[in-house]
Amino acid sequence: MQKQKRRLVRKIAAGGAALLSLAFVPAIAAAQELSDLKSSPPLTLKGEGSFFVGGSTHVIDPKYISPSTFSADSGNSMINQMYVQYQIPQNNIDQYPIVFVHGCCLTSKTWETTPDGRMGWYEYFTRKGFKTYMGEQVGRGRSGFDALNYQKVLTGDLPGSKNPAILIATDKFAWSVFRWGDFDTKTPFKDERFPMQTVGVGKNATLDFYKQVIPDLNSTLSEASSPTCADGNCTPSDPNAPFNSPDNMALLANQLGGAILVGHSQSSGYPTMAALRPGSTNVKGIIQLETGCFSNLTAANIKVLKNIPILIMVGDHFTTAQPPATCVTMQKQIKQAGGDMTFVALPDLGIHGNSHMFMQDNNNLQVADIIINWINKHVRFKNHGHG
Amino acid sequence: MQKQKRRLVRKIAAGGAALLSLAFVPAIAAAQELSDLKSSPPLTLKGEGSFFVGGSTHVIDPKYISPSTFSADSGNSMINQMYVQYQIPQNNIDQYPIVFVHGCCLTSKTWETTPDGRMGWYEYFTRKGFKTYMGEQVGRGRSGFDALNYQKVLTGDLPGSKNPAILIATDKFAWSVFRWGDFDTKTPFKDERFPMQTVGVGKNATLDFYKQVIPDLNSTLSEASSPTCADGNCTPSDPNAPFNSPDNMALLANQLGGAILVGHSQSSGYPTMAALRPGSTNVKGIIQLETGCFSNLTAANIKVLKNIPILIMVGDHFTTAQPPATCVTMQKQIKQAGGDMTFVALPDLGIHGNSHMFMQDNNNLQVADIIINWINKHVRFKNHGHG
Repeated sequence: MQKQKRRLVRKIAAGGAALLSLAFVPAIAAAQELSDLKSSPPLTLKGEGSFFVGGSTHVIDPKYISPSTFSADSGNSMINQMYVQYQIPQNNIDQYPIVFVHGCCLTSKTWETTPDGRMGWYEYFTRKGFKTYMGEQVGRGRSGFDALNYQKVLTGDLPGSKNPAILIATDKFAWSVFRWGDFDTKTPFKDERFPMQTVGVGKNATLDFYKQVIPDLNSTLSEASSPTCADGNCTPSDPNAPFNSPDNMALLANQLGGAILVGHSQSSGYPTMAALRPGSTNVKGIIQLETGCFSNLTAANIKVLKNIPILIMVGDHFTTAQPPATCVTMQKQIKQAGGDMTFVALPDLGIHGNSHMFMQDNNNLQVADIIINWINKHVRFKNHGHG
Repeated sequence: MQKQKRRLVRKIAAGGAALLSLAFVPAIAAAQELSDLKSSPPLTLKGEGSFFVGGSTHVIDPKYISPSTFSADSGNSMINQMYVQYQIPQNNIDQYPIVFVHGCCLTSKTWETTPDGRMGWYEYFTRKGFKTYMGEQVGRGRSGFDALNYQKVLTGDLPGSKNPAILIATDKFAWSVFRWGDFDTKTPFKDERFPMQTVGVGKNATLDFYKQVIPDLNSTLSEASSPTCADGNCTPSDPNAPFNSPDNMALLANQLGGAILVGHSQSSGYPTMAALRPGSTNVKGIIQLETGCFSNLTAANIKVLKNIPILIMVGDHFTTAQPPATCVTMQKQIKQAGGDMTFVALPDLGIHGNSHMFMQDNNNLQVADIIINWINKHVRFKNHGHG
């Protein structure tokens, strides 16, 4: 089990972290739901909205239409598309747009208001001048999923064992994978920075965080037919494998004329995979939150990646040896080729207690500032001459 | 089949529509994807974000955890919550917040950027000064769904026939239900206002609209065990039935201290249902887009509804007799009790060619203005003395 978990939440230790300037640490908030939303100064947007990238149609036979009263409406249905939500600040900076993609069992909600009502990274990066995008993983949330096999099982054309496995993340799963402390006694780490009052700890606690944890249907993806995916644990180990979400992230980066891609946890390897897709020429920065290293890069892969600045950032409270071999290998290969790969373990900067979900921790804006500083130093916008 | 469709897209004809002032009709845009997003003047927000209402936990046994490597993490998972996204304009008007809830096989994307890249109602109502909220139906998109029965079928504990039926809406379904014209020849109505280039009509056409049509999992809802729901066609016919989404809309209206609730198509009856929930005291306006009438209201129901202004709005190109008996009955009952129920058929205002999806039609902002005028005249904000 531990091995599988390690694959999902690849863990990396300190090494190569540049000294980065830090910003303010906001006070810890205790809050939940509508009544506890925090206010901020006004935000002026040049634009906002949503659209899709990718997608393909497939035919739905009459027998698989539910309710059967609609069976005469058999026809084409869309799958594999990625929903993208964005906002562009009125005063935006000379920098590539940033694209956030969430992890397992979560949606783009990850980057919005924190479970205790504080500002999330979607708003914060916009306020910092970034054209900010959030891509919802294919198979999750507003991106939809491929429901056909469930209907085939329902009608008896496939056995029940062919239901694509759904990853249902529980509270215990979250305590373990998100590194909050001891689940059985509900005792957080002493310096835990996640808003633990939203996962049942303390007086007037709620379970609000768990409302953003939804079933993971990645095993329904058209490109998820590998053995790894059969049990619902869908994270490609081959950086060159086609996979719907990174494929769409590559498309998006091309359409944007350049973008910094951010992945987290399950999606931490997606920015690298997107950069390696055939025809992908516009990934201008790779940010892997809580790992995403590949030790099986080809020479051709390294030739691509050495031109793209890479940041890996991890939080606190890992129990396994770090960095894992994959990251040591990858960083060595990239650096030897003349590339730029930075590894940041927050504790090495004197910042302790961060969970796997540091975009929601009580110092989430401090962590964002570290990322922004890295971008400013490493990602060169085209108008300023891209290296 | 037609009867079932009629239930989903309840159709009502003209009657009782006040003359309402009209605004501008934007030019028809031909566009798709990122490259065709239209720009607007800056938008200044006082706040933005997201949160949840409702939700309950249920236990997931080890055998139903996928992947099985996580089986030791069996525990509680959250279901029945509603994801809510909002933005509050810097200059907001003295009016209750407005809450939009989408229809079948769709998400809150319904109210965002139109498929051809124009401004949607989420942004437009915000620009018009409304505190604007979008609730994602329970069982859809970021609200998640209950995956447990699919896992029980996967493990053999339930037969395949117990897979909750999933409504997969196809292109043919959309042409029929959304009233675009003739599917077989792909010929839109001559005055069709939906951006048909996003559903394959004309030169350089795309299929982009279909990307927002996703599988409908309403049959997985905990309160969807009625025979109506067994085949996936989940729209309660009893206004007093508990049902997850309207239950959460009632909670939200209470938390907001008053709200105008808007439903569309599958959800058109939800605002009324929300108003009738025990403890619901803050539904201040009911807006039913493309129907949602109940002819089976109790005397107690009417006593509640006579105090809440109700607007029903329908588009063009209905082929069946209108208004249907349900709406005639309901409007008569409400009016007899001294209530306020307005019915607007857009063709009666001289506006022709609107589809079922008029929030995305080429005159979507004109239609929005009609709704805003109705709100201004019929919904009295508390600070101005609520009738």
